[in-house]
Amino acid sequence: MTIIEQMGKNAKVAAAQLLTAGAAKNTALNAIANALEDNAQAIIDANALDIAAGQTAGLTQSLIDRLTLNTERVKAMANGMREVAALPDPVGTTISGSVLQNGLQITKVRVPLGVIGIIYEARPNVTADAAALCLKAGNAVILRGGKEAINSNKAIAVVMRNALQTVGLNPDCIQLIEDTSRQSSTELMGLSEYLDVLIPRGGAGLINAVVQNAKVPVIETGVGNCHAFVDASADLQMAVDIIFNAKTSRPSVCNALETMLVHKNIAPQALPQIYKKLKDKAVELRVCPRAFEIIGGEQDVKLATDEDFYTEFLDYILAVRVVDDLDQAIEHIAKYSSGHSEVIITQDYKNAEQFLQRVDSAAVYVNASTRFTDGGEFGMGAEIGISTQKLHARGPMGLEQLTSMKFVVRGNGQVR
Amino acid sequence: MTIIEQMGKNAKVAAAQLLTAGAAKNTALNAIANALEDNAQAIIDANALDIAAGQTAGLTQSLIDRLTLNTERVKAMANGMREVAALPDPVGTTISGSVLQNGLQITKVRVPLGVIGIIYEARPNVTADAAALCLKAGNAVILRGGKEAINSNKAIAVVMRNALQTVGLNPDCIQLIEDTSRQSSTELMGLSEYLDVLIPRGGAGLINAVVQNAKVPVIETGVGNCHAFVDASADLQMAVDIIFNAKTSRPSVCNALETMLVHKNIAPQALPQIYKKLKDKAVELRVCPRAFEIIGGEQDVKLATDEDFYTEFLDYILAVRVVDDLDQAIEHIAKYSSGHSEVIITQDYKNAEQFLQRVDSAAVYVNASTRFTDGGEFGMGAEIGISTQKLHARGPMGLEQLTSMKFVVRGNGQVR
Repeated sequence: MTIIEQMGKNAKVAAAQLLTAGAAKNTALNAIANALEDNAQAIIDANALDIAAGQTAGLTQSLIDRLTLNTERVKAMANGMREVAALPDPVGTTISGSVLQNGLQITKVRVPLGVIGIIYEARPNVTADAAALCLKAGNAVILRGGKEAINSNKAIAVVMRNALQTVGLNPDCIQLIEDTSRQSSTELMGLSEYLDVLIPRGGAGLINAVVQNAKVPVIETGVGNCHAFVDASADLQMAVDIIFNAKTSRPSVCNALETMLVHKNIAPQALPQIYKKLKDKAVELRVCPRAFEIIGGEQDVKLATDEDFYTEFLDYILAVRVVDDLDQAIEHIAKYSSGHSEVIITQDYKNAEQFLQRVDSAAVYVNASTRFTDGGEFGMGAEIGISTQKLHARGPMGLEQLTSMKFVVRGNGQVR
Repeated sequence: MTIIEQMGKNAKVAAAQLLTAGAAKNTALNAIANALEDNAQAIIDANALDIAAGQTAGLTQSLIDRLTLNTERVKAMANGMREVAALPDPVGTTISGSVLQNGLQITKVRVPLGVIGIIYEARPNVTADAAALCLKAGNAVILRGGKEAINSNKAIAVVMRNALQTVGLNPDCIQLIEDTSRQSSTELMGLSEYLDVLIPRGGAGLINAVVQNAKVPVIETGVGNCHAFVDASADLQMAVDIIFNAKTSRPSVCNALETMLVHKNIAPQALPQIYKKLKDKAVELRVCPRAFEIIGGEQDVKLATDEDFYTEFLDYILAVRVVDDLDQAIEHIAKYSSGHSEVIITQDYKNAEQFLQRVDSAAVYVNASTRFTDGGEFGMGAEIGISTQKLHARGPMGLEQLTSMKFVVRGNGQVR
């Protein structure tokens, strides 16, 4: 049995114990929060090793920044734990119930998923955040973080496992794979005997590798090639504000705007105004030939390739296309979108409703920024990611999305 | 582009049209029902080819029986269509909704999954039944039936597609793969660009092949290695009745009983009585050494192998093990069960509740036959299968389990 198989087996034992853990899960989350703060210096020291290695390896400043932990960030992880502890426990909730004519009482009850695998990239805070949500929902978790953060992740995992033990829970509720080779991640994807679901968190490359290789159920998260369609009847100032916010308020996140479609009738007025506003943040535009005719002479305006329309830039870059009508906008989105979030900016009621009905994405908007697609904003509490698939969970995934259900049937001798 | 890729592409177009089909789906289902009856003779003639081929190939009588269509069975397919038409439409239902402080209106709305692939084995009625449920839930379906029923399936599919066309719906809402080679099924499992979910319906061999090879989300259905635990405090007559019903009322279905666990304190009384009742149906018992000490001398009682406890017999065979206590029963189920349906027969309240909480299967029972795990019995209407996985759907899968959801957000210029 390999190390990872053994971890799967241990996780299954821990998951069985969590089925009846009840409020002990909250005790554990609060204990972990305190332990993270008490051991902040050890975690920060371990993190310094990762930062030094990252600088030697020539990581970009923005990656180094995501990697960095300090007292404040460790405190934020601890407070995240406490917030999750304070959320209502989804496990044990009765979803529905009835008594059949033969007297059988059937209730549909929320239960944990079991064992969750999470594969993620550079940010060490995910180690704590993901563990908190999985534990609260009654699941054992196997974490496989990126090599850039391995020392930080190990330090955080040790603190969490020790804290579990002090409150009498099985430390294997939270396990970290220390081997950050590609092989360890492939092995985790094949652990069908033990894993109930695998959640990759990261860029398109990671998600695709998991979808192609996993032998266990996967929930795809986080790739957001989000679109805005500026309809002919759009309020132009509203369009400018929404596009500017969706593109520039935080370009590195999955709910940021990547492509703008503009109705041909409003393009001559809209494109120059939107361009002008985006210039405040030096946004580069990659535009179709029709848009190029209108704003082609401007600085930072280039002709787009087809590939650009498929790309999640996560940067100050926006793809732009002029379309004939709503149908062409919807067709474009159906072809190029990752199914995350899309918005129509319009004053036309019929077009708004058509867009909401026909665009097949996790979140569809009228007249608002795509940046709202977020568990916190939607009132679901902390989220483990944003699902862009249609099975099990779609959109922000909170605690409820980390559970399953079962039918509980009470009888007194009924036979069929 | 291969034939199957082209079918995927066509299905995606049809699925987009179904998003706004509304009540036309019911018109289509009723038209298909009438067309099936009108063309019953052509379907029965095609079926005769399959039966002749099956007899030549030496299929067992029970397989030939499952394969056979007659006027009555075609009428049953048609009536199944009408029943599905009469069910409430799950699509468009508002699951929840709220208005945020910033004025954004968020509703969570039920939508179709999109394109569903179904891989199934010998029974031609699945072609009609599965198509009906997928269509009603707004999905395009690609059917890949077994080679034994290919002529019947083709005849049924032609009738359904023609009927779709007469009511103005895209016939590609229902497509049948006519190539029944292993290759076609592997290709369907890899159609990640077009399929939203793949549902295998069949034996453990098919399910495992799909789980190992699929690049698309899968819902595992139908493998039921179901357990009954006769606790020390069981009402013995109730135990006899439930075991007899669960094992013998229809041994070929997935909710039939396959293994009985008996508490050691009641085994000396229970085993002879249960054995005696099962003899009415000539059930063979494969028993552990401790059970063999009690009823080992009887006819049709053999020693069980470990493999027997993993086996879904689907026949008049029952594996039997004497256990020390509830914990050992729960451990046995955790190790050997497929997670379908399990029952405890007991008069002990605490043990009943422990069993319900700690046994991790789709349906857990106290004092009733496992045979009730069924969409119809549970009041969910027709079902497409019984899911034994924990993601998306668990237990009987009706119309609602063939849908997804999306967030619809209406604003008036909100930015974040």
